[in-house]
Amino acid sequence: MINNTVGEPADTSLLSSPLLRGPGALPRQRQLIQRLKQAILAGQLPAGGKLPSSRTLSEELDISRNTVLIAYEQLTAEGYVIADRQGTRVAPLSAAASSAARHAAPAAAPSSATATRLTRIVSARHAHDGSLPMTPGTPALTQFPVNAWRRAQDRALQTAPATVLGYGHPLGEPALREAIAQYLRVSRGVRCEASRIVITEGAQGALALCVQLLTNPGDTAWLEDPGYRGAKSAFHAGDLDVVAMRVDADGIVIPEGAWTAQPPRLIQITPTHQYPTGAVLSLTRRLDLLARARRAGAWIIEDDYDSEFRHQGEPIAAMQGLLPDAPVLYVGTFSKTMFPALRLGFLVLPEAIASQATPSIVEMLRGGHRLEQLTMAAFIENGQFSRHLGRMRRLYRERQAALREALAAHLGIDHEVLGGHSGLHLTVRLPPAFSDVGIVEQSRRLGMNPSALSSFAIAPLAEDNGLVIGYGNTAAERFPALVRRIRDLALGSRRDATADARPR
Amino acid sequence: MINNTVGEPADTSLLSSPLLRGPGALPRQRQLIQRLKQAILAGQLPAGGKLPSSRTLSEELDISRNTVLIAYEQLTAEGYVIADRQGTRVAPLSAAASSAARHAAPAAAPSSATATRLTRIVSARHAHDGSLPMTPGTPALTQFPVNAWRRAQDRALQTAPATVLGYGHPLGEPALREAIAQYLRVSRGVRCEASRIVITEGAQGALALCVQLLTNPGDTAWLEDPGYRGAKSAFHAGDLDVVAMRVDADGIVIPEGAWTAQPPRLIQITPTHQYPTGAVLSLTRRLDLLARARRAGAWIIEDDYDSEFRHQGEPIAAMQGLLPDAPVLYVGTFSKTMFPALRLGFLVLPEAIASQATPSIVEMLRGGHRLEQLTMAAFIENGQFSRHLGRMRRLYRERQAALREALAAHLGIDHEVLGGHSGLHLTVRLPPAFSDVGIVEQSRRLGMNPSALSSFAIAPLAEDNGLVIGYGNTAAERFPALVRRIRDLALGSRRDATADARPR
Repeated sequence: MINNTVGEPADTSLLSSPLLRGPGALPRQRQLIQRLKQAILAGQLPAGGKLPSSRTLSEELDISRNTVLIAYEQLTAEGYVIADRQGTRVAPLSAAASSAARHAAPAAAPSSATATRLTRIVSARHAHDGSLPMTPGTPALTQFPVNAWRRAQDRALQTAPATVLGYGHPLGEPALREAIAQYLRVSRGVRCEASRIVITEGAQGALALCVQLLTNPGDTAWLEDPGYRGAKSAFHAGDLDVVAMRVDADGIVIPEGAWTAQPPRLIQITPTHQYPTGAVLSLTRRLDLLARARRAGAWIIEDDYDSEFRHQGEPIAAMQGLLPDAPVLYVGTFSKTMFPALRLGFLVLPEAIASQATPSIVEMLRGGHRLEQLTMAAFIENGQFSRHLGRMRRLYRERQAALREALAAHLGIDHEVLGGHSGLHLTVRLPPAFSDVGIVEQSRRLGMNPSALSSFAIAPLAEDNGLVIGYGNTAAERFPALVRRIRDLALGSRRDATADARPR
Repeated sequence: MINNTVGEPADTSLLSSPLLRGPGALPRQRQLIQRLKQAILAGQLPAGGKLPSSRTLSEELDISRNTVLIAYEQLTAEGYVIADRQGTRVAPLSAAASSAARHAAPAAAPSSATATRLTRIVSARHAHDGSLPMTPGTPALTQFPVNAWRRAQDRALQTAPATVLGYGHPLGEPALREAIAQYLRVSRGVRCEASRIVITEGAQGALALCVQLLTNPGDTAWLEDPGYRGAKSAFHAGDLDVVAMRVDADGIVIPEGAWTAQPPRLIQITPTHQYPTGAVLSLTRRLDLLARARRAGAWIIEDDYDSEFRHQGEPIAAMQGLLPDAPVLYVGTFSKTMFPALRLGFLVLPEAIASQATPSIVEMLRGGHRLEQLTMAAFIENGQFSRHLGRMRRLYRERQAALREALAAHLGIDHEVLGGHSGLHLTVRLPPAFSDVGIVEQSRRLGMNPSALSSFAIAPLAEDNGLVIGYGNTAAERFPALVRRIRDLALGSRRDATADARPR
């Protein structure tokens, strides 16, 4: 049937076997196109071969001539065939190309150094299922005023429908940046104007932006140990040389020689509520760090992730506001104060770099999520945010107290509760005889999700053994039973007990 | 009043001047805390100096003793003062620290090579104000079914309120990834399963992910010239060596020697609808590129940004699906098919790298925007997405026809319309006598927002002179007037005309 100019036998069954009909079948026109393409790519219809006339093919396949004509047009448009006065011929695809099509070998695996570095640190990751009790860092989602949020979204959508749908400012909605600036000045003692605020994909987006704006591969970054593992990921993604600094009851400890031996470009800290130990960075250390960072040309990243929930006294002011022109990039998030899936974080740029940095940020970010950003701005402006914070502060205070009581009454193991003046979690240090990783693994099987303190450390010491227990998402009355369950797991996994029980 | 043990005179006015009262004033407790902190940081209350007793200070300032006690407690917690049996004293802050606090020098400017590279390319950026007519790449926002979308969001929120609020899967909601996989297989001929799909912050997020996963600084990346400037930004952010490849009527042209002289790691292309020239990459070139990329160990990024809106024939199938295991990363976005502020894009990973890449993606992305993702999944599954696409396809076809007619009838200048078989824009090439940049600048002042073709080129040639005119967001009946306005601007800015008019 096919006039094959290069002499190879053409497989005509391709074209003569009937097309599928009936519900569930692709339109016949599309079936025909696919069948012809496959035959051409597989070499069954070789280059230069003439296709049957539209009349012939329509009769063979019992379809309308128009269907065939449209299929041929499509194949012509895509370059599979060439139509001229002599008819429609298979296009001369280069030999290399058609051989590649026939003998496809799988491509090489990815090999970026970044991917390799990041893959290596994966083992230490959190399971982020906020639905399990005791998950650190997850707020009380069932208490979130979903209906108020929905109504606020509807209002934002109705007020400016087309605005909300279009491309937005790469640095974020001006209304939200203004609302955040106002909030940070009053509530967190941050020195800022809206023009220096960038809306980011959570705190993680802000950290990534700091790395891109301020570092080159190979630069040194200090971080807290134990500390927030997202910072480690962000620094590894930027190919930074990561130096772990221990944390004690007064926050990060910088050994005297470190400023000259390993001068940092970035210093990541959580001064108001160290994650996960709960330490508050002392004023002496704050001032010292600011002075030395300035002298060394280093930048401090102040990650202020949950300090709104202070349970004793007033919130501790942000380090960024201690001095005018402090060398600090302030990072905040609404993941704890609102809800994680909102994925709204922000970065306050220091005045010294804000105007120079803006053009490159405009190249990296594209704005978007305008409806959510405008709704959040309205939530702050009309006081719903403050009221929600107040309610949650009271709730978390209650839940923390219940967890403390349950630990004292039911844990039945020597332990030390660290920090705890604020936030959504308590860290409980355990004696070395108990494996925190073992307890955590087994807890998940029993439907609890605390984290292992040792998994937050880059180089874990014996003292980094314990549990990081979230109370944000767990009702107060559940703690006695949960803590008893943890106790049983811990006693069962006791290293020396196991050793004793085994025959030698 | 202050018992100053180091002998310096203390400035007692700080403490004795009355606190502000009345509406608008901060709570007096907070005023007191701020005043004490400032005095300590400024050295007016020197280290070791004793603060007045709470009784004395409460009488001096006419406030309750409890307010003073709470203020002292807070200062103690933050490390400004030390309380012992002798009373409350200013903490010994290190000399370096307090001097740093007094003599604050502005910090150094940012210096990452990335920031510098990105700042350099800024000049060529789009103004992304989608509200102006003729903006390329902006869909018909006023036609978007806002109410249907809102109702779908409400349903998603009510179905699973707590789920929608919590942390999600780092690669995106499984339901959306499944819906996209299904859609891409049927409508775009992409070979994929949901497990290989990553939800990203628009197409830009997908490009950035490709760079992070697959390249090291200094690797070579090829891109189309003229081409999509977001690719240039993403490649520069990854410190890649960017090589511009010219585009003709059949898409990207790879000079024979390039594979050996500048072997690429990444090749960015828009094969179905070249941005901005509208060319379709020919099948011969597709197959050749696939075969050579595989042999060279290079990866092709297929950016399939607006091919749903084909105005002649059926949509052209994606290049990714041409071969099994093609070395292609397929990038898509809902910015054109839905609305830009949704900021939902996606990346289809090749099977060869999907499982190895996942752990490092998990370190880089954090999920989120779950409500929007689940709503989008429902929109696809229940057919609302297809119906919206169908309506928009008809609308854009009409608008494109109106623009073509207006150009033919009213532009009154020699011109060539490029591509135009699909999408949301037409590219109109102009004779060199007319400066596209000049016309564009003036258009904005008159409330129109076409782009200059030359601004898409890395090394603009004479033929890269023209206008990229969006019709997605512009009603058909407006084009005659808009095109006449462009004509007037163009004739006014004519280079030789201006030269002629000037006295020599």
